[in-house]
Amino acid sequence: MTWTRKDLLGLEDLSKDELELILATTDSFKEVSTREIKKVPALRGKTVVNLFYEPSTRTRVSFEVAAKRLSADVINISAGESSVRKGETLIDTGRNIEALKADIIVIRHNASGAATMLARQVQVSVVNAGDGWHEHPTQALLDIFTLKEKLGQIQGLNVSIVGDIAHSRVARSNIWGLTKLGARVTVCAPEILIPPGIEQFGVSVTHDIDEALRNADAVNVLRMQFERDEGGAFPGELEYFKNFGITKERLAKAKKNILIMHPGPINRGIEMSSEVADCPNSVILEQVTNGIAVRMAVLFLVAQARDKNHETIN
Amino acid sequence: MTWTRKDLLGLEDLSKDELELILATTDSFKEVSTREIKKVPALRGKTVVNLFYEPSTRTRVSFEVAAKRLSADVINISAGESSVRKGETLIDTGRNIEALKADIIVIRHNASGAATMLARQVQVSVVNAGDGWHEHPTQALLDIFTLKEKLGQIQGLNVSIVGDIAHSRVARSNIWGLTKLGARVTVCAPEILIPPGIEQFGVSVTHDIDEALRNADAVNVLRMQFERDEGGAFPGELEYFKNFGITKERLAKAKKNILIMHPGPINRGIEMSSEVADCPNSVILEQVTNGIAVRMAVLFLVAQARDKNHETIN
Amino acid sequence: MTWTRKDLLGLEDLSKDELELILATTDSFKEVSTREIKKVPALRGKTVVNLFYEPSTRTRVSFEVAAKRLSADVINISAGESSVRKGETLIDTGRNIEALKADIIVIRHNASGAATMLARQVQVSVVNAGDGWHEHPTQALLDIFTLKEKLGQIQGLNVSIVGDIAHSRVARSNIWGLTKLGARVTVCAPEILIPPGIEQFGVSVTHDIDEALRNADAVNVLRMQFERDEGGAFPGELEYFKNFGITKERLAKAKKNILIMHPGPINRGIEMSSEVADCPNSVILEQVTNGIAVRMAVLFLVAQARDKNHETIN
Repeated sequence: MTWTRKDLLGLEDLSKDELELILATTDSFKEVSTREIKKVPALRGKTVVNLFYEPSTRTRVSFEVAAKRLSADVINISAGESSVRKGETLIDTGRNIEALKADIIVIRHNASGAATMLARQVQVSVVNAGDGWHEHPTQALLDIFTLKEKLGQIQGLNVSIVGDIAHSRVARSNIWGLTKLGARVTVCAPEILIPPGIEQFGVSVTHDIDEALRNADAVNVLRMQFERDEGGAFPGELEYFKNFGITKERLAKAKKNILIMHPGPINRGIEMSSEVADCPNSVILEQVTNGIAVRMAVLFLVAQARDKNHETIN
Repeated sequence: MTWTRKDLLGLEDLSKDELELILATTDSFKEVSTREIKKVPALRGKTVVNLFYEPSTRTRVSFEVAAKRLSADVINISAGESSVRKGETLIDTGRNIEALKADIIVIRHNASGAATMLARQVQVSVVNAGDGWHEHPTQALLDIFTLKEKLGQIQGLNVSIVGDIAHSRVARSNIWGLTKLGARVTVCAPEILIPPGIEQFGVSVTHDIDEALRNADAVNVLRMQFERDEGGAFPGELEYFKNFGITKERLAKAKKNILIMHPGPINRGIEMSSEVADCPNSVILEQVTNGIAVRMAVLFLVAQARDKNHETIN
Repeated sequence: MTWTRKDLLGLEDLSKDELELILATTDSFKEVSTREIKKVPALRGKTVVNLFYEPSTRTRVSFEVAAKRLSADVINISAGESSVRKGETLIDTGRNIEALKADIIVIRHNASGAATMLARQVQVSVVNAGDGWHEHPTQALLDIFTLKEKLGQIQGLNVSIVGDIAHSRVARSNIWGLTKLGARVTVCAPEILIPPGIEQFGVSVTHDIDEALRNADAVNVLRMQFERDEGGAFPGELEYFKNFGITKERLAKAKKNILIMHPGPINRGIEMSSEVADCPNSVILEQVTNGIAVRMAVLFLVAQARDKNHETIN
């Protein structure tokens, strides 16, 4: 199959075949970052704009490195900057970036649906780098790529996702991607952090961390964004660690080779002990490495599809 | 003729021939951004420094894209940063950038005359990206280029500029450029936003928007910078729109093919209705596209002139 | 000899031979910035990350220009950004950057020892761009390179360092480098700004600026960071200038060809008069130019050493 979408907005939209195509493309780009000269000319003369309405060093840097290793020119625009403050609408900003003859907009926005709305209004490719509580597709893709690389296939895996499921775009994108590829997903959190009706997405729910770990091939531990808790609904940090933190003791009752994943940055001593973060089961840094390859693949695929569409139109 | 200035400081300084040379050079660079590989090696190994004392995403990004499509290395320095806060003078900052062996400084500054003062103190090329209320030459050049592209020539055109003329470097640069090239310019605003004596620059003045539109081939609508109104001298937003906002109803009485221009970002519903901003007469996004080509031309011309001067000196 | 260190953390660690190797390498890179195309492919396909926990336009820009002239890809991360604010530890940030397959981290940090701690935890090269009051090795190297370029050799020179010695990483790195290369160093400041016991580092101490200038071949004038004086221990600005400021009158009693140096940005009228800053003895802007060449040399040497180590390991 060939990739035909100009945008990557979320994993909900994608077919199993499309997911597998991204994973296969990622595989071929992973090697580039191991070369002495870590650069291919795939996007030479293309312009990638990182449009970040929320600050995110990690994701911005990962996309910037990926784009530069593809030889693209990268322009960073961040939320604090003026046009945004001057009250320009997202659509006007997007159309202006399109008018610069940019090729790809990588957008991070605090409103769910922002990437999709933008993609409909512009011909330039849009890659969703996280929109509100909705989706963060490249994060889920790098999680899934790491699982596949380590465990051979996704079909039949038991994957538990632990943490603030209710406010997590990472959880949502992982659920879409993993279930499409045949994994069994369990979400685990205090009741208040589980969105009602989530079982409809084909996942199991537990509030017991030991149960979440018991048969898991991998546990994906979400960052607790205590800094975002405005209503005081979150449990305290110590209480959270006591009830949901991943520790050596808890891992002793899990599968011996269980993979420990985390999208970062880790709150050591809250989501997991430092010991767990650095243990041989942890693939947290390999996720970061794979993030570059996944984003190279995504940028490459959407740019190629858009060039093809353009040819057809013109 | 050939371009001999190391700097572009304003349109007031330029002869008609120089203006036309920039427009012709822009024409030849415009094609680059339509290629699959949008890059030429013209400034390879040159260093362009964007030195922005006022925030401006649009102008900074436009210069950054232009410089990168010329294969230059681009360094961004913004006002919030430390040397500036550490109280270094503009001249010392400029000399330090020169000592890095930079080739071009693109400067945005809130003081009128800053670019000119800097250019006198350094051998590096200086491009004025907006200085106080004085000039914003590349904005006016892209406006003029767009007019010429759409209407064939500037000579004999009726161009109305609407908005805060008193505090607008965009208006000032447009007036210099347009009148030199033979257009008739009318400015239109509430009395308080028209600088006294502006008729001396060869422009007509009106406070009646319908009169400004009546015979106009193009109307250039300035952004109302309500956020900058410290003295409370500005009219209210609603009142402004009622008296000066461009609407379909008002356009119905204008020439059928009147061009609608705006330097962006638009305050929809204040300077013009949304309908007008997006109507077929609007060339606002084409202005953005032409901004890249104009800035490529300017960067190219000043770099070339400077290299030639250097040869003569050394 | 060949360079074998993956990091540059400070001049305290380096042998005389290593210092001389850096100076010789700097010499060969200095020519690059005088070419029409100021670029060599030495670090093509390498990724340099500027990780700045303290703001510093000058140093960041100098490293960025140096890396780009070596054809590296450069990623800027600054303190205000999110991962830092999200409380990630320095080691985790470093390991994440390493996982991106970056080649060099250039780190500026307010804690003494930060660069060394980071370098021990990652295989990626670390270049110290200033850590607390500890060291700022590339600044001292560019000072020393400038001295050598102007005066032929370091051996036997009398160099005075004037200003806040107690809180100055620039002073510390200069003292290590200059004494190893055989210069006689005198430090001069009000008593409160001289760290007790500094004589043990082989330097002379004076509180009399005229004495410091008397036999000096060069005077390196430090920036008075009045903005950092929290305890009110600093003398007032006028008092400082009266007692320690470099003036034409004071220079009249010094060697005729004494070199005036300053790491910038200068407080004109505090550390020295404007007249002195701009006089023919001043090599302040040449220091800036040499900063590019020194940083190109350092980035090149550490990258090369790391590639060689890698080969041995793999």
